Amino acid sequence: MEQRVSLVTLGVRDLTASRTFYEALGWKTGADPGDEVVFFQAGGIVVALWSRTDLAADSAVEDGGGWGGITLAHNVRSPAEVDAVLAEAEAAGATIGRSGAATFWGGYSGVFLDPDGHPWEVAHNPGWTLAADGAVTLAK
Amino acid sequence: MEQRVSLVTLGVRDLTASRTFYEALGWKTGADPGDEVVFFQAGGIVVALWSRTDLAADSAVEDGGGWGGITLAHNVRSPAEVDAVLAEAEAAGATIGRSGAATFWGGYSGVFLDPDGHPWEVAHNPGWTLAADGAVTLAK
Repeated sequence: MEQRVSLVTLGVRDLTASRTFYEALGWKTGADPGDEVVFFQAGGIVVALWSRTDLAADSAVEDGGGWGGITLAHNVRSPAEVDAVLAEAEAAGATIGRSGAATFWGGYSGVFLDPDGHPWEVAHNPGWTLAADGAVTLAK
Repeated sequence: MEQRVSLVTLGVRDLTASRTFYEALGWKTGADPGDEVVFFQAGGIVVALWSRTDLAADSAVEDGGGWGGITLAHNVRSPAEVDAVLAEAEAAGATIGRSGAATFWGGYSGVFLDPDGHPWEVAHNPGWTLAADGAVTLAK
């Protein structure tokens, strides 16, 4: 198995509300208004929004009903940009789970929760390289 | 907010067991044996393994205890490769949630569950482009 991820699918309760939220963050999709799945090209991977009920069945799992042990992060180039993205997310309707602040690992981050409660850490990690296209490279 | 993901963190109960599983799939990490977080470079993003309890606290969420509405997918180049990756995962200790089979969307896929029950769909999608480096590009 190659060392990579192709697609991250977020299960949602209300596809239109969730799509509207990510579009308010500036994300673009080629999905038609009636499509049952909304795909976003996100660098070399794809982020999808799909009915949480259908996703659970397709994933051969039972839905625990809350958070299930996966958190996404979006790395940016400065602490100020962390605060800017958190403010943008809040304006788009996100809940701020944790405001931007210095972290125990030497960076700066905060967390917003999307309309379905999926957490996104917004982070500046001075030890990682963030390319112009957004690709991240570990220090080691 | 740029249209991209930097990091996917999987909350785990037993870091050594989870690390051993992903290493058995051929994944390489530069983490030291005692590190509390195991990072894998995965193309232009990073996949991390970290204590699920710590991740929940850091993500400002309550742990629902099961699956929480996020599924990862790993796209490959043929139906035969789907079956091969599923067999490799099963040999490494994964549970097969759904065996490889034709899908309603015109592709071929199956699902394995990692030691913490995180589902990975292994998929061949003839409508998407998969580059030599594993980057995926949507049809539209």
